[in-house]
Amino acid sequence: MISDLWLIGIGTGAMSHITLEGQQAIRDAAVILLPRKGAGKDDLATVRLKIIEAAGAQAKVVPFEMPVRDETLSYQERVALWHDQIALAWQGALAGTDITGPVALLVWGDPGLYDSTLRIAERLSPRPTIRVVPGITALQALTAAHAIPFNTIDGSVCVTTGQQLRTHGLPGKAETAVVMLDGKCSFMALDDPDLMIWWGAFLGMPEQITIKGRLRAVGTQIVEKRARARADHGWIMDTYLLRKGDG
Amino acid sequence: MISDLWLIGIGTGAMSHITLEGQQAIRDAAVILLPRKGAGKDDLATVRLKIIEAAGAQAKVVPFEMPVRDETLSYQERVALWHDQIALAWQGALAGTDITGPVALLVWGDPGLYDSTLRIAERLSPRPTIRVVPGITALQALTAAHAIPFNTIDGSVCVTTGQQLRTHGLPGKAETAVVMLDGKCSFMALDDPDLMIWWGAFLGMPEQITIKGRLRAVGTQIVEKRARARADHGWIMDTYLLRKGDG
Repeated sequence: MISDLWLIGIGTGAMSHITLEGQQAIRDAAVILLPRKGAGKDDLATVRLKIIEAAGAQAKVVPFEMPVRDETLSYQERVALWHDQIALAWQGALAGTDITGPVALLVWGDPGLYDSTLRIAERLSPRPTIRVVPGITALQALTAAHAIPFNTIDGSVCVTTGQQLRTHGLPGKAETAVVMLDGKCSFMALDDPDLMIWWGAFLGMPEQITIKGRLRAVGTQIVEKRARARADHGWIMDTYLLRKGDG
Repeated sequence: MISDLWLIGIGTGAMSHITLEGQQAIRDAAVILLPRKGAGKDDLATVRLKIIEAAGAQAKVVPFEMPVRDETLSYQERVALWHDQIALAWQGALAGTDITGPVALLVWGDPGLYDSTLRIAERLSPRPTIRVVPGITALQALTAAHAIPFNTIDGSVCVTTGQQLRTHGLPGKAETAVVMLDGKCSFMALDDPDLMIWWGAFLGMPEQITIKGRLRAVGTQIVEKRARARADHGWIMDTYLLRKGDG
């Protein structure tokens, strides 16, 4: 039974993205649940372990197997079933241990932003007390890497996904769009000569790559660079900002 | 002349929001420019000084007077003139000093998000090399305080301002809206019985206040609580998230 669950945002992969609150929470946790993912994601597991070690954690680190998503189901069904399975995997991993304090999970970026951990936590029974430690998201890491503002003066920003962009196109009223979870370079479907793109992958990590420019001019370059980087690392995390004009 | 300018995001007021990168940057800066604001904002100045001290800064702390905005001008003119004046104030404050290293500014939240520092920095001549250190924004602090996700599954979020909300109403396509810079409780103009609000002020600080519920049920309560808290502190920083349904 988990009575206190801490979701700790750790930023986008830079050791130095962690906050003092995050560091202290890692130190104070009794147990840290650590996902075991498939081959090719070793870089990420290593970063997590380094952060835990650097924080001086006393916690028992308990690994759990990440279930595989059933790709035969519809998107919503697949995600719901997957979240159920992960909640069971947490409970299964903890079943053999003697918990007497807070259980922590380290979450890439921020636990609120395009992350499932909060939704998985809601499936636990009895429902634990949840503490969220905010973390640096890809939104901040991207605009910091390019040293650009997130928004125009008094302007709106639409934070959206690759799938939304493919289905609905650019959001109408917002001057700026930031696109997350886009494995398909959906920006290539946009055809506005005024559109600028600021793209970044592995943001905050030593492998960080950034490309910016008019979308028409640099779109193909981003697609190629992304494919190469993904092949080299076995995985990629990237995001981009779109805005009209010269920025 | 400023050759290296570092904009360091320090989060929303919690000492513990600062990242390891931010802490190290404060330590490595040669000069830290510190705004002097009017009476009633002493709390904020104190937090900045505490962060500088806690980081173990060796930097020379150079204060500058924040110019007053000319309220007789139009919004865009007023903001442009004010940015010009702040850039001059930075340069004036540094004129008497012997800079031999990076000049840093501590920025609430994140330097990219509804903050003018990047736009002011563009006015410096010659243009310095700019480094942005990402920080925890009010978006993360708000969703962390309420332990809610920023977005629905695969959903879009519109980050907007009070003025935009009053002028254009709720953005159509996004499932979620987060409203910043709203001094006028613009949510009171919305009349949708399904709308939920998650509101927070002084996020991350000991004075933090949060209210959540159906907008129709808690709207007036927020207006009253906000007015009281503002009178008590002499200032307020608040933000809120709007979403339909039960969250």
